[in-house]
Amino acid sequence: GRVLVLNSGSSSVKYRLLEGTERLASGTVERIGEDGSPVPDHRAALESVADRLAGEGLGLDSPELTAIGHRVVHGGTAFTEPTPITDEVVAGIRELVPLAPLHNPANLAGIEVTRRLRPDLPQVAVFDTAFHATIPPAASTYAIDRELAARLGVRRYGFHGTSHAYVSREATRLAGDPDARVIVLHLGNGASASAVSAGRCVDTSMGMTPLEGLVMGTRSGDLDPAAVLYLARTGGMSLDEIDELLNRRSGMLGLCGDNDMRSVTERVEAGDEDAELAVSVYCHRLRKYVGAYYAVLGTVDVIAFTGGVGENSAPIRARALEGLEALGIAVDPARNARGDTVVSPEGSRVKVAVIPTDEEYEIARQTLSVISHHAG
Amino acid sequence: GRVLVLNSGSSSVKYRLLEGTERLASGTVERIGEDGSPVPDHRAALESVADRLAGEGLGLDSPELTAIGHRVVHGGTAFTEPTPITDEVVAGIRELVPLAPLHNPANLAGIEVTRRLRPDLPQVAVFDTAFHATIPPAASTYAIDRELAARLGVRRYGFHGTSHAYVSREATRLAGDPDARVIVLHLGNGASASAVSAGRCVDTSMGMTPLEGLVMGTRSGDLDPAAVLYLARTGGMSLDEIDELLNRRSGMLGLCGDNDMRSVTERVEAGDEDAELAVSVYCHRLRKYVGAYYAVLGTVDVIAFTGGVGENSAPIRARALEGLEALGIAVDPARNARGDTVVSPEGSRVKVAVIPTDEEYEIARQTLSVISHHAG
Ligand SMILES: Nc1ncnc2c1ncn2[C@@H]1O[C@H](COP(=O)(O)OP(=O)(O)O)[C@@H](O)[C@H]1O
Ligand SMILES: Nc1ncnc2c1ncn2[C@@H]1O[C@H](COP(=O)(O)OP(=O)(O)O)[C@@H](O)[C@H]1O
Repeated sequence: GRVLVLNSGSSSVKYRLLEGTERLASGTVERIGEDGSPVPDHRAALESVADRLAGEGLGLDSPELTAIGHRVVHGGTAFTEPTPITDEVVAGIRELVPLAPLHNPANLAGIEVTRRLRPDLPQVAVFDTAFHATIPPAASTYAIDRELAARLGVRRYGFHGTSHAYVSREATRLAGDPDARVIVLHLGNGASASAVSAGRCVDTSMGMTPLEGLVMGTRSGDLDPAAVLYLARTGGMSLDEIDELLNRRSGMLGLCGDNDMRSVTERVEAGDEDAELAVSVYCHRLRKYVGAYYAVLGTVDVIAFTGGVGENSAPIRARALEGLEALGIAVDPARNARGDTVVSPEGSRVKVAVIPTDEEYEIARQTLSVISHHAG
Repeated sequence: GRVLVLNSGSSSVKYRLLEGTERLASGTVERIGEDGSPVPDHRAALESVADRLAGEGLGLDSPELTAIGHRVVHGGTAFTEPTPITDEVVAGIRELVPLAPLHNPANLAGIEVTRRLRPDLPQVAVFDTAFHATIPPAASTYAIDRELAARLGVRRYGFHGTSHAYVSREATRLAGDPDARVIVLHLGNGASASAVSAGRCVDTSMGMTPLEGLVMGTRSGDLDPAAVLYLARTGGMSLDEIDELLNRRSGMLGLCGDNDMRSVTERVEAGDEDAELAVSVYCHRLRKYVGAYYAVLGTVDVIAFTGGVGENSAPIRARALEGLEALGIAVDPARNARGDTVVSPEGSRVKVAVIPTDEEYEIARQTLSVISHHAG
């Protein structure tokens, strides 16, 4: 089957047309709704995608198009699997807007346009949170008032689920054991870790929102929750300013003025102290999560690096796992420098792997599997 | 030397008079400043302490009294060691009030009264944060804007330092190796973990405030920082209400309505599902910190349980460390039930120990050591 995968974000729409693993077309429409942009809204953006595809003879009206798979960020507790889109599903995604005020409305905008353009075509919502639905209550429950938490939906949902699903499946295959225990480190601009046992996610570092957990490009990750109160009361910051600080001016950017890990690691090589501090904080946090998930899983068979940083930065991989020999974890310098699939030494108890993520492929795969399941 | 140890809190003053390890007198004056209480303020509370001691022939004016040691919660970055109290030190502790708005003023109230009563006597401030001053920047730095963090003092300070100092020293002695790697789990109403290598603290779970980290009696511990913003914006709560929620109505109390671990574990035995969830969240968090600090330290020689829960609750000790055999960690059921000093099986690679904390003794010890150092 041929699947159009749409990732409709707040200011851009990314699309990819896939036939199996083959990419027939792909691209991005950017600057939606910005001043002076030729793309005023999501309707215009999606029409531009449709035009581009038609120009390549792959138009939305093509009879060969089997389905459209939409990335949707927040599925809450309602959507724990890829879901064929109906009016009720659209309403359900809208109800979750308070939990993902920037993302879900943009995802919905894409869905609404393509449903108007091709009302007959199966469309599927694939949720970033869904892979984490198997996390047990011990790990998903925050230790706050339960009634209030239930009423407001305050719990660990986790994100990047499509990537964690894809990469942990590949890692499990690499282990040659369906019951393998896997730690996935998805390190891109956003970053998250997950603990996966026999293909099921049992813990993840992002929480109620994508802010919690690892140090990211511009996000703080873990922070004393009372620091937020302190920034408001003693620091005199508004909630919007704190939101902007923690999501856009923190992480590597906040620590050393740069969120491109390539140039940060180059600065470390050149002896830059700010970059060195930033990388040391980044790797310390990673090391803590590796240890924490080792304990959560009881043991580990594969640690899989993915995302722009995880796939490309040998120094970050080496440094994050430095000194963990007592846990059976080691990185072979030559393999790591080459970026081999397996970068741990031959015979290591824990396989350390580099597994490029492919979220669009995974969305297409899940979309087709849901359709054939519902058809059959 | 004879030392009076004072822990002057917001609504109570605890005192203990020590001669070496011998306790000559001790007690608590409670309900300071409360409606209908006979103790209107800290001056009255301290005078009541002085009266009680005088009644036992151990008055503040006794020539045998060598010094007074005051517990002070927040030493910021200025006070990293026990410090003889001068006018400048009092001013320095006052400058830190924004970081500890409830605690430092109460600590200061006690200091000011005893300085008036015995201006000639050496008095020493022993800070809860001091033991954590050795934590390296990789662990003490939050990944937020550095300039803002420096200006407002947003960093990991850590608390319960006197307990972590005392217990980790005992654990290091138990290991028979001055370079031992130790994890201390201080589990009382407040709860915190620390990672100690060769006697130096290298990481701890409490952060800028005592809210971060483990699940506590009434405090949440770790929480997505964006959840605080969400509770304010979507939940419509004020900052004071959120503060009250996270510090007083969360933790075990928020999860199951009870913060007395004894009765919570009894309810678990009886099949109560709320208590079961609360304990599972509590132990999951503990397990994550044990794994994280295992990775931070590279390996572990001793895991030491202390505090009311850590010293007395065999089921919590067993459950927190369940399934960690791959890390060389195990608990022997018979030893654990008896509450032996070492509760791991004979020959275990990691010693699991129960070490009752003694913060007052440690404050007295540090007080005397500072005085003799300054005298000599
Ligand atoms: N060779 C490299 N070395 C270090 N970092 C790299 C390298 N290549 C890409 N990156 C980093 O990957 C990050 C982007 O990751 P990516 O997964 O593409 O992000 P996103 O989360 O937006 O999908 C950037 O910080 C970039 O600097
Ligand atoms: N036998 C026991 N079993 C379980 N918990 C206990 C037991 N004895 C005391 N505790 C718990 O210890 C906690 C108080 O610890 P403590 O260290 O005294 O507190 P604080 O932090 O106030 O100093 C309470 O939750 C109490 O229920």
